[in-house]
Amino acid sequence: MKASASVDIMPPRGMRDFYPHQTGLREILFDTWSKAAQRHGFVQYDACIVENLALLKRKAGEEIVDQIYAFNDKSGRKLALRPEITPSLARMVAARWHALSFPLKWFAIGQCFRYERMSRGRKREHYQWNLDVIGAPGPAPEVELLTTALSAIADLGLDSAIRVHISNRALLADLLSHQGISADRHADLFLVLDKRGKLSDAATSEMLGKNGFTAETTAKIFELFRLDSLDAVRRHLGKTTPALEHTAAIFEGVSAYGWGDRIVFDLSVVRGLNYYTGTVFEAFDVDRRFRAVFGGGRYDHLLEQIGGRPIPAVGLGFGDVVVMEIMNERGCTPSVPAAADTVIGYMEPSQFLTGLRVARALRCRHERVDLAMVPEKARAFFGRASHAGARYAIYIGPDDVEKGCLRRKDLEQRTEATLCLRDFIGDAS
Amino acid sequence: MKASASVDIMPPRGMRDFYPHQTGLREILFDTWSKAAQRHGFVQYDACIVENLALLKRKAGEEIVDQIYAFNDKSGRKLALRPEITPSLARMVAARWHALSFPLKWFAIGQCFRYERMSRGRKREHYQWNLDVIGAPGPAPEVELLTTALSAIADLGLDSAIRVHISNRALLADLLSHQGISADRHADLFLVLDKRGKLSDAATSEMLGKNGFTAETTAKIFELFRLDSLDAVRRHLGKTTPALEHTAAIFEGVSAYGWGDRIVFDLSVVRGLNYYTGTVFEAFDVDRRFRAVFGGGRYDHLLEQIGGRPIPAVGLGFGDVVVMEIMNERGCTPSVPAAADTVIGYMEPSQFLTGLRVARALRCRHERVDLAMVPEKARAFFGRASHAGARYAIYIGPDDVEKGCLRRKDLEQRTEATLCLRDFIGDAS
Repeated sequence: MKASASVDIMPPRGMRDFYPHQTGLREILFDTWSKAAQRHGFVQYDACIVENLALLKRKAGEEIVDQIYAFNDKSGRKLALRPEITPSLARMVAARWHALSFPLKWFAIGQCFRYERMSRGRKREHYQWNLDVIGAPGPAPEVELLTTALSAIADLGLDSAIRVHISNRALLADLLSHQGISADRHADLFLVLDKRGKLSDAATSEMLGKNGFTAETTAKIFELFRLDSLDAVRRHLGKTTPALEHTAAIFEGVSAYGWGDRIVFDLSVVRGLNYYTGTVFEAFDVDRRFRAVFGGGRYDHLLEQIGGRPIPAVGLGFGDVVVMEIMNERGCTPSVPAAADTVIGYMEPSQFLTGLRVARALRCRHERVDLAMVPEKARAFFGRASHAGARYAIYIGPDDVEKGCLRRKDLEQRTEATLCLRDFIGDAS
Repeated sequence: MKASASVDIMPPRGMRDFYPHQTGLREILFDTWSKAAQRHGFVQYDACIVENLALLKRKAGEEIVDQIYAFNDKSGRKLALRPEITPSLARMVAARWHALSFPLKWFAIGQCFRYERMSRGRKREHYQWNLDVIGAPGPAPEVELLTTALSAIADLGLDSAIRVHISNRALLADLLSHQGISADRHADLFLVLDKRGKLSDAATSEMLGKNGFTAETTAKIFELFRLDSLDAVRRHLGKTTPALEHTAAIFEGVSAYGWGDRIVFDLSVVRGLNYYTGTVFEAFDVDRRFRAVFGGGRYDHLLEQIGGRPIPAVGLGFGDVVVMEIMNERGCTPSVPAAADTVIGYMEPSQFLTGLRVARALRCRHERVDLAMVPEKARAFFGRASHAGARYAIYIGPDDVEKGCLRRKDLEQRTEATLCLRDFIGDAS
């Protein structure tokens, strides 16, 4: 039965293995995300990571379609690993349109896949926290999403490390129209402007030129990005617009919540996905050394496009990779707790059964207990217990069972207590 | 931009959508699994659901290979969605062989995929709790796995509903050899005998006949399945064997833990996977109306086969589907908690900002707070709050803000308290 040892023991390229320490960190992050969402009244949903290819292709931008892991099942169905969760959410909401009570405040934590070039530590899968508010008008949904994400950021110890850059595509459209650029050119422009963060101004000008924008128009567009506050925009327009009022109300709400210093107005935020209709935002570390920590925006037409009705919707996606990189760089990576509160060892095989009874009694008190699988010498046992980071160690020898007494060492306080075996085990039932 | 409404809004065939209620139940189950594993000193790991096809094919049985969702990535790599987690675990352990401290007690909760015929409510994906002990000799690992799984069963309120049927392939081999069936025929026999639960005795006889076993031998094999205790096996053999002693020690350990009445000796348990070497077990509802709740066994050669060294290993897999069916049938499905402890509503748009400040203060006290997105009339608000199952409701009118007082209704106790707005908000910072 022995086979040759030629199987690849590494994970597929771009995929991560999670050994216990990494899993511990991941679970701390997931728990932080869940608790923040729940404190803000969001409920959890999920869809399968395998999705219909047609759904994913329909609503994503070109770049994402190229990166989808697609395959056929044995019946020839065209399936894919989801690159994002929002299309599945839109599908689920459309499928139960009449049974759901709006507005919905839903969150999900799920794995997403993109076949990307393997550069700068990018992986081909990541976990993403999604927050969505569906069916509420006005700026309240944006305030709710941003304060929820900022609450998680605070819980991770990154309070002062992250700023959310907020813009509004409708407001940018107001400004472009004001500069004399007609509305039918805006979608093309957004695609170019979204890449601006990664390009020099010269390269952006060149791309705009290729898209048929004159040097004069390009200069006017660049001028807009010098408008660094809502007041500056208002002065430039010489009036207010619904998009301007909406954006101002988001700033007012987040400021009332006490986090006005965590958000900045930044017209350069456009976002790559072509389904955004209004507000768009991206959160970055203050030094701008990493990719976006989270991002999102308003997508008021998406549900209609996949077969639902027109309904206002705002969403946010927050990945696990960048935030971990920033925590690591800032030295605030959380510590993963030791696996056990108490470890139990014994001298001879016959004391294993006593160990089991003691372990059960402690576990009934919700202690996390690691019982040795084999007999050990006392010295080896205490060395192992200390190395494992457990608080308490109990070592059972034949005399202990006979006397009905156990010694429990507190490895942190360096004290020792004697426990009466009968009382101890009498606790379990 | 409006597209035709032809996108399929249902999930891919055999895959599940998790709406908030189902997700709530799923999270309760996952939490029960995690806590039971942690109480027993297990640490969590995970691998990506996308795995190398070669690894999955190498160690699984024929049936599983047929059911794998396989695909090529854009570089032509042969990948697949994992049908089980054990091969990834074996790969991860082999990859860090020298850095890990054995024995390992690891658990995982992950989604697995099999392309099966869609009969009797079977899905093409499910979540599976995996528990594995790697690197410990003797019967202690089996005792640890079984008591951990039984502890989760008890936490789910199914204490008396489930029995674990335990056998040992090496012990069955001892018995077959004793009946004069040579060892080189045992593997074929195990494959037929694993299907016995789903077939009549006549059909099993026929299959054995096709595999070259005479009617006389078949009668001898059937005779073995009447041995319904370890004592009966010992009498039949006229001696003891290492496999018999090992199995007896498992019963002794689980009984010392207080759960001897939850396990039965059952030679008919064989298990389909061909990597099991000794102990095998399957847990069923006492009425045998459902498929197995969990199952597992010893696989001492698996790591060696994929490039590691020989090392003892025992594993257990516990799916999410059958246990939920049994809880549902027995009326002990847990109740999913309401989304919010407190709901906050307001009469006019201008009170939204006050609502935000109150919500933040309560959230800082770890309350789960749902703040209305739009103004509501008092009657509509309280109706909604009550329907949502929240404990407390706070409704803010213009007078309240002016007076600096809020009324908080306890919807459960039907009482009302007045809160001073300044003190209340002063709490947040």
